[in-house]
Amino acid sequence: MSTARIHAHYVIETGGSLESAAAAMAGEQSTGTFVALPGETPELHARHAATVERITPLDDAVVPSLSGAVASADSRYRRAEVELSFPLENVGTALPNLLATVAGNLFELQQLSGIRLEALDLPPAFGAAHPGPQFGIEGTRRLAGVQDRPIIGTIIKPSVGLTPDETAALAGDLARAGLDFIKDDELMANSPHSPFDERLSAVMHSLQDAADDTGALAMYAVNVTDELDEMLRHVDAVAEAGGTCVMVSVNAVGLGALRAVRERSSLPIHAHRNGWGAMTRHPLLGYSYAVWSQLWRLAGADQLHVNGLRNKFWEPDASVLRSARACLRPENGHPAVMPVFSSAQSADQAADTYAALGTVDLMYVCGGGIMAHPDGPAAGATSIRQAWRAAVDGVPASEYAQTHAELAAALSLFAR
Amino acid sequence: MSTARIHAHYVIETGGSLESAAAAMAGEQSTGTFVALPGETPELHARHAATVERITPLDDAVVPSLSGAVASADSRYRRAEVELSFPLENVGTALPNLLATVAGNLFELQQLSGIRLEALDLPPAFGAAHPGPQFGIEGTRRLAGVQDRPIIGTIIKPSVGLTPDETAALAGDLARAGLDFIKDDELMANSPHSPFDERLSAVMHSLQDAADDTGALAMYAVNVTDELDEMLRHVDAVAEAGGTCVMVSVNAVGLGALRAVRERSSLPIHAHRNGWGAMTRHPLLGYSYAVWSQLWRLAGADQLHVNGLRNKFWEPDASVLRSARACLRPENGHPAVMPVFSSAQSADQAADTYAALGTVDLMYVCGGGIMAHPDGPAAGATSIRQAWRAAVDGVPASEYAQTHAELAAALSLFAR
Repeated sequence: MSTARIHAHYVIETGGSLESAAAAMAGEQSTGTFVALPGETPELHARHAATVERITPLDDAVVPSLSGAVASADSRYRRAEVELSFPLENVGTALPNLLATVAGNLFELQQLSGIRLEALDLPPAFGAAHPGPQFGIEGTRRLAGVQDRPIIGTIIKPSVGLTPDETAALAGDLARAGLDFIKDDELMANSPHSPFDERLSAVMHSLQDAADDTGALAMYAVNVTDELDEMLRHVDAVAEAGGTCVMVSVNAVGLGALRAVRERSSLPIHAHRNGWGAMTRHPLLGYSYAVWSQLWRLAGADQLHVNGLRNKFWEPDASVLRSARACLRPENGHPAVMPVFSSAQSADQAADTYAALGTVDLMYVCGGGIMAHPDGPAAGATSIRQAWRAAVDGVPASEYAQTHAELAAALSLFAR
Repeated sequence: MSTARIHAHYVIETGGSLESAAAAMAGEQSTGTFVALPGETPELHARHAATVERITPLDDAVVPSLSGAVASADSRYRRAEVELSFPLENVGTALPNLLATVAGNLFELQQLSGIRLEALDLPPAFGAAHPGPQFGIEGTRRLAGVQDRPIIGTIIKPSVGLTPDETAALAGDLARAGLDFIKDDELMANSPHSPFDERLSAVMHSLQDAADDTGALAMYAVNVTDELDEMLRHVDAVAEAGGTCVMVSVNAVGLGALRAVRERSSLPIHAHRNGWGAMTRHPLLGYSYAVWSQLWRLAGADQLHVNGLRNKFWEPDASVLRSARACLRPENGHPAVMPVFSSAQSADQAADTYAALGTVDLMYVCGGGIMAHPDGPAAGATSIRQAWRAAVDGVPASEYAQTHAELAAALSLFAR
């Protein structure tokens, strides 16, 4: 019998005592129910109960963060970091069963007016049981043919409406413009207007034509998202067409399907996180990026979206950087993965991104920041490479721009 | 070309104008990006853009519900119901791609300080493209051998710690006690302590022995949740063992995997919703039950958890009843499904549940409400049948209890 334990770290809020709230969490997710039962012996409880390892109080609140919780008798809603541990023997290593245990019904407890899963420390059995990333940073760089700088990419836009041939023509132009990486939008998957097979065939021909001219095949993250059987067929089709990356809307397909893609795919998996906001945007509900990314990495993702600095979305820069650092750490015995920066990225954010992370091991994906460059996409792509060259060399972007026209034009349009 | 459209209904909150927020939503999820692009012609926009169909203002708020949104200039956060429509031609019928379109990045928009997907009106193509429930209410009743009253069930407790043989002994006792339906806990799936194959074999033998005595095989929802390949193997194993139901933690495995279970399974799918709270507990974030259940029904769920009246969780009764009514409506061309009531259910809630819904087409699952009955589980099960008999006959439970000792004992312990 293994004595290994799964450790889960939460932030909670309760109108009652922190101790009783933590005990309710441990009981709900292991041996408890709402009344004592005949089968629940002390021996069984000692061996299988979840344990409250630590309670670290935080500042109180005066109003509850979530409704439906038991009201506080003294109008104080106590917050704390809570660490629980669970016997691995209770759970096994399957990711869906891990989730049912460390998250599951906890979000429902009326003792809690706030509950968020912040971190998971998993025993080595999880790393051994799951494939993890097949390519990670090194494999993605090898297939993209890019070393010593970020992989610079763009998104096929408009998100919807282009026919396969129009998409292919645009992709070819972007590859000739010097992009390392081109991805489908998450809204472009397999629709009547842009059927997967037609788009794949048209774009790959166009990219290979461009490669004949440029000497390098741009990495194309083909959106294979679909019902499972179709998605696996798409994965095979991308490899057969000579592609080098598949993209999946991971929240939409789920953990089981992503792991099936990992087992089928001979190519890196670009994990698009659309839908993620619903799970994380409230600070006292849902999941941290650290937990979310850990699960998808175990299941096999190689490249994970982290948003970007000064993005067009709600997320503050500090949160974006925490996510990127999570991707850059090896975890559960598996190597680091590529953080994918996107959302209103342009030459403007390169210096701050490098200053914060101190690495070029990332994918830097711009939409308008490349395609709307005043001198066209090729100048846009050049402006990003220049901005990163300046950042790595420690030269202020404004100074570098004095001798690099593409960067100068980008900064005058995009700097905020 | 199909002109069918997908209609999505949201509740939103914004510090800006409702019109510009709704336009931002439509743009983000169809043809837009943050600057105008060369490929985005007026013709393309007219054909593929999402449309703002309706904005119905609600009361304003003075503080934003979610952080990270653009601040209001006049300290008013406007709320509204917003209806968008999307061309089916943009999306296709795959559920993951539907989700990426109607939800996806919307939760991230900084124009919004609240965003929740409340309802989806799908064109008939979705009903035709997806299997829907294989059994629904009628098929579940047929396999459970129960007509004209709720299917009365219980959960194997304690949630963890019982060996397969102990689980089997308890399940046999419960079947002999007259339960129609017995389910594994969501924490009991396939662990070192309770391996799936051993538990299935032991419990099925025990239930078949009990059936030899009682004349009816209790329906046993075997928790098949696991990584996909193992889960599909479990599904086959349940059918081979003579089982009549499989249970899946649907949020944990995801839509792709659940649909794969549906295509593989010859048995009803009991959809456990653990993890659901994270997606719905904040009223201005995430998803309504109506949307959530619609997706899982299309993918193939037959029985869906709805919580219960006066439950031990955070959810108000009105919300529980809305969920149950959603299950009881045929939808997308597929029949109604079984709402599963659970969480602190006992004889106490039968009358109110029947009064609110006017139907016995439901599963009524009690843990302590049966197993902790002062006269044992058989009396507990009897008390539930008596409570429902009284409810259907229009006799107050307290009056019926005067001549029914099991109900009387249950009410004196459980009534709240």
